[in-house]
Amino acid sequence: MSKVWEENFSYNAKNVRPSPVREMLAVIKQPGMISFAGGMPAPEIFPVDEFYEGVHILKEDGKNLLQYGTTEGYPPLKEFLAEWTSPRMGKVAALDEMLITTGSQQALDLFSWAIIDRGDFVITEDPTYLAALSTFYNHGAEFLGVPCDGEGMQVDLLPEIIEKARKEGKKVKFIYTIVNFQNPGGSTMTLERRKKLVEISHKYSIPIFEDDPYGYVRFDGEHLPSIFSLDDAGGVIYAGSFSKILSPGSRIGWVTGSKEIIRKMTVFKQTADLCTSTIAQALVAEYCRNGHLDKHIPVIIDNYRVKRDAMQESFKRHLEPLGVSWVKPEGGFFYWLNFPQINTKDLFKKAIEKKVAFVIGEPFCTKPGSGIHNARLCYTFPSPEVTEEGVKRLAEAVQELAQIATV
Amino acid sequence: MSKVWEENFSYNAKNVRPSPVREMLAVIKQPGMISFAGGMPAPEIFPVDEFYEGVHILKEDGKNLLQYGTTEGYPPLKEFLAEWTSPRMGKVAALDEMLITTGSQQALDLFSWAIIDRGDFVITEDPTYLAALSTFYNHGAEFLGVPCDGEGMQVDLLPEIIEKARKEGKKVKFIYTIVNFQNPGGSTMTLERRKKLVEISHKYSIPIFEDDPYGYVRFDGEHLPSIFSLDDAGGVIYAGSFSKILSPGSRIGWVTGSKEIIRKMTVFKQTADLCTSTIAQALVAEYCRNGHLDKHIPVIIDNYRVKRDAMQESFKRHLEPLGVSWVKPEGGFFYWLNFPQINTKDLFKKAIEKKVAFVIGEPFCTKPGSGIHNARLCYTFPSPEVTEEGVKRLAEAVQELAQIATV
Repeated sequence: MSKVWEENFSYNAKNVRPSPVREMLAVIKQPGMISFAGGMPAPEIFPVDEFYEGVHILKEDGKNLLQYGTTEGYPPLKEFLAEWTSPRMGKVAALDEMLITTGSQQALDLFSWAIIDRGDFVITEDPTYLAALSTFYNHGAEFLGVPCDGEGMQVDLLPEIIEKARKEGKKVKFIYTIVNFQNPGGSTMTLERRKKLVEISHKYSIPIFEDDPYGYVRFDGEHLPSIFSLDDAGGVIYAGSFSKILSPGSRIGWVTGSKEIIRKMTVFKQTADLCTSTIAQALVAEYCRNGHLDKHIPVIIDNYRVKRDAMQESFKRHLEPLGVSWVKPEGGFFYWLNFPQINTKDLFKKAIEKKVAFVIGEPFCTKPGSGIHNARLCYTFPSPEVTEEGVKRLAEAVQELAQIATV
Repeated sequence: MSKVWEENFSYNAKNVRPSPVREMLAVIKQPGMISFAGGMPAPEIFPVDEFYEGVHILKEDGKNLLQYGTTEGYPPLKEFLAEWTSPRMGKVAALDEMLITTGSQQALDLFSWAIIDRGDFVITEDPTYLAALSTFYNHGAEFLGVPCDGEGMQVDLLPEIIEKARKEGKKVKFIYTIVNFQNPGGSTMTLERRKKLVEISHKYSIPIFEDDPYGYVRFDGEHLPSIFSLDDAGGVIYAGSFSKILSPGSRIGWVTGSKEIIRKMTVFKQTADLCTSTIAQALVAEYCRNGHLDKHIPVIIDNYRVKRDAMQESFKRHLEPLGVSWVKPEGGFFYWLNFPQINTKDLFKKAIEKKVAFVIGEPFCTKPGSGIHNARLCYTFPSPEVTEEGVKRLAEAVQELAQIATV
């Protein structure tokens, strides 16, 4: 190994945390493994034919689409999204209030560029999306975690958290929240708390990053107003994604917000990747223009609702008797399990032996040592039959661990 | 305007430099404008039909391609590239020595994540690619510019520059070089200097980032060995791109290097955008697999050679008599002009009135105040006839400025 790299790595490179999900891929790909790990959409319902229907655009408009696109995004896609998202946004966003991103993951990076200085603090739900934590961490952020319950982030705790941090000289730069079917916790923030959160944002002049990749995948009940639509001061940025409602491989996300922040994120996108693939943008835009998006979302919802319910039944059969608990999510991709008295790191090793995989709880948490009794399980990918078998294996792993502990 | 953003912007957001090229788009799009500004491939020779030939992969392998891809890149594309680039790399890169990036712009960002700490120094050609300077700058780098002549970076100056910097306590982290048909200068580094540069890299233990988007677009003479192939210590990372040999809209680039640095860049890619669009990767891979890439590059070369020569003739007719000078590039996209006694910022304003656009020299330079007599002109986009008219307009702008100066 050449020493030249090691000698020249940045602080970030020396301290970077690889994504536990991405790193687990090698393990997950072992033959016979049942994986509840990655947040992967079900491939059997990808709308392959409907997506393919739009490929003619690559011929008809090829000279334009093979060329550089604008950093701001492919105009027909932005125009579609501005209209399509308007019920949730409470308005039709202007083109300079929206930016197309290379997946909503990039929105996190560009927003971090615009807001975070090393040592700044970010308020997040605890636990939260681990690749958001990693992105903010790479940009030098530290965290103030807010616990969640069945109604989402406990926003009543915020004033005290913010005031204490400020007294200690900490700069609190923004609040990051996944309001719908939170990753990994599964809870959805109530309307009352959403309103309260906006009030707090105004009172303390702290902007909000509303991450909503799962919002359109609701199984039960009514959609709640977005935080973006509840705010009249322009201090909320909303990130959406095609990853869970069409295709993660397309890598198309978007952000809507006031033009000041969109402008800054656009300038950072110039140095991040210049523009998002025009080819991918055009194919997604054609799919949407052809009316497939609204028809396909109910297909996704029906498929995942069945899988969520099946996983819940499997939990009841195999894990509830062992004292394991969870919150039933109203939408999205994940169950967040609590295994009292078991460290899920140990459980993970045992589970891998049994050929079943999940993500351990700790990397979703803002403090080392928390989440050690938790696990995130994704139900969207495996069939109900496979889920039943996987949960059975997991229960066996729990029992074996318990036996070891009592020997 | 909401104050919440302004109050919370990062140091970077307050100090970011928008890309002058991207920012000029509004001006360039004025009706009747002749633009030599952006480094845009000629749309009339985009291989639209050959690219379209591969779309069937989106149907055949749709379930796989609509899904998340691995961060490392789409394996068939990597396998093709490892073989195809091997003559230039001096070996067939292993899959863990290569990473697919969202355009080679992303390679600059990921490499910066891995290497640069705020206050570190980067050695670059002076002038150099302005979006590389912006990326490194956003990551906190400062610059040590090395002047170029017709033989590329004056590498003989490096030992003194490095030793002086080290004496002053400066951390010199890497050397950034565009060895072939440099952007914006147009020069190509000689073999002797390439060897010398590798020696210096070894002696001082400073890695090299070899950026080569234009290398395959050579009009005259023979390809020179890449710096990567001249180095046996694993301290060179090579960045390639499909932007200039196929399609910038695809946003597909790649980096080849030793697995230590590739690994770190991959981890940062997890937080940047998770993976590059699998759809775009698969379409580019199909295009390559169908044998079109090697057939198309000569088409590009023939087209651009004619345009380079035409621009040179226009320069001789209209600008040489006015004392303007340049180096004729052996490949690539750009002329770099020197206008003695004219500040090209003034010239730019006058040129826009005359409906001709270029990029001023200053943002390509590492020090404010340098490059003020220079301009970068791209010849690949306009036809020879349009180029003739544009250069004529530019000469008129020069003459009018000279008159103002002598009044």
